[in-house]
Amino acid sequence: MEELKIFCPATIANISCGFDVLGVALDSVGDEMVIRKTSKKGIFITKLEGQDLPMETDRNVAGVAGLAFLAESDYEGGFEIEIYKKIKAGSGIGSSAASSTGAVWAMNELLGRPFTTSKLVEFSMEGERLASGVAHADNVAPALFGGFTLVRSYDPLDIVPINCPTELFATVIHPQIEIKTSDSRKILKTNITLKEGIKQWGNLGGLIAGLFTEDYDLIGRSLVDHIVEPIRSILIPGFNEVKTSSLAAGALGCGISGSGPSIFAFSRGEATAEKVAQAMKDVYQEIGIDHDVHISKINTEGIRKIK
Amino acid sequence: MEELKIFCPATIANISCGFDVLGVALDSVGDEMVIRKTSKKGIFITKLEGQDLPMETDRNVAGVAGLAFLAESDYEGGFEIEIYKKIKAGSGIGSSAASSTGAVWAMNELLGRPFTTSKLVEFSMEGERLASGVAHADNVAPALFGGFTLVRSYDPLDIVPINCPTELFATVIHPQIEIKTSDSRKILKTNITLKEGIKQWGNLGGLIAGLFTEDYDLIGRSLVDHIVEPIRSILIPGFNEVKTSSLAAGALGCGISGSGPSIFAFSRGEATAEKVAQAMKDVYQEIGIDHDVHISKINTEGIRKIK
Repeated sequence: MEELKIFCPATIANISCGFDVLGVALDSVGDEMVIRKTSKKGIFITKLEGQDLPMETDRNVAGVAGLAFLAESDYEGGFEIEIYKKIKAGSGIGSSAASSTGAVWAMNELLGRPFTTSKLVEFSMEGERLASGVAHADNVAPALFGGFTLVRSYDPLDIVPINCPTELFATVIHPQIEIKTSDSRKILKTNITLKEGIKQWGNLGGLIAGLFTEDYDLIGRSLVDHIVEPIRSILIPGFNEVKTSSLAAGALGCGISGSGPSIFAFSRGEATAEKVAQAMKDVYQEIGIDHDVHISKINTEGIRKIK
Repeated sequence: MEELKIFCPATIANISCGFDVLGVALDSVGDEMVIRKTSKKGIFITKLEGQDLPMETDRNVAGVAGLAFLAESDYEGGFEIEIYKKIKAGSGIGSSAASSTGAVWAMNELLGRPFTTSKLVEFSMEGERLASGVAHADNVAPALFGGFTLVRSYDPLDIVPINCPTELFATVIHPQIEIKTSDSRKILKTNITLKEGIKQWGNLGGLIAGLFTEDYDLIGRSLVDHIVEPIRSILIPGFNEVKTSSLAAGALGCGISGSGPSIFAFSRGEATAEKVAQAMKDVYQEIGIDHDVHISKINTEGIRKIK
């Protein structure tokens, strides 16, 4: 096998009470990539369509992740990478993670899987470091493992796959405003009260339990974030209205995707997810902000080969 | 049915990263109680053996929980309560919770179950308020539901039963020193860093996932508490030695039970739990502090009728 064409899913990170630890992969939103073995050592971005992003290897997240892979591989050759972006950079649904994970996942396949999935997470985190200044794992882990993943610990890196209820759908709306990840990190408080912390880990415990027991009501009750959402949502015009309308339309819960500006909602069943999409769109039509909406079942396999 | 004799389990609360939210019921440690219907309205503690505790209804945790029950019940009569304490008050394994839950559980049985288990949790919390000044639910919930329980939220009260792996055993050592719950609460910091919080909810997520997937290694890796244990353990002589020895003897994890001074460890299988017990005893024999040790499988049914 000399070449692979793949689908790289968009991902939602910072799922409400799971700030910085819980992410999930989407099924109908994502990039396409072609990865090709070359005899020449190195990583070469040969095509990049759909977004205006750097093509120099060391300035491109897929390039940087690929270099991290090569540095630990005993493979003597190199790889060409074509990237067909469908996920908008800066939208808050893991655009950089899709590219960095796609590169290393396909490279690993082409070489007969020398590395574990957890190791691929580590390589991909170098792409995240380039994109946002922080080598976070909460988007790259679900892109690689599929479904919901928990980053239990960074030192050592410990990724825990979490069960995904079969009827769970995500609706994501991307209001076309710009928020930089680094900015939305700056406004976070560095301290919280122990009381707030207890509420947050109580809710995360409930969310994980709800995902395992496929208890949709419990999932809904647990999708609460008292700590980050009240602060970050200030940067997203219409956030409270979108949340209120989504819940009124039947969503189990609603929150900020990644560091925004995208907003996600989870619903039981596709019909409800569609109603939620309409409710979200109505808000931004009223406010007059351009937006994209995605409705997707949860992707439980992660990156996949296509055609 | 006019009278019930019951076993009321001891419980471990504040399970490491599950501070204030996660508790578990023990199987071989607990009190016995007899609850009897009377025609006279009211709650009457007619016998109290094994511990020197108040017998006046409004100064006894079982009495206070019973009064909360009666206040919402349309039952015209009352109850006599006999308490045979085996759990030492102030030991940190839910002595007051055993008494308050036992009272209301048996009363509910005797009246044909007018109240849900969650409602019984609420009545029992009044006993906890009397005992420690705080109406916490993390001991009374596992005593009533059995197994592991998560207190997801207090407002509204939301108790989530968590799966219990079949081979899980607890070892608990009670060094006979006195720590008041109110004192060990006072030394807690009221603020934590967001970073510490993220670690804690990452670990709690991992622990809940490990309990559902019966992944003993994951349970062990997740039994970490960066926030409360480093502070409270200062009040428990020999804590670090007990922890180190328990882990060396094969325990999955080890921490402070409730607000101490008891220390718990979880192990896979009874044989390991026994080795851990010996390791714990050795430490306190060396230091010269009297102690009790309990080895118990997890109690998954909660309070039960006996004979």
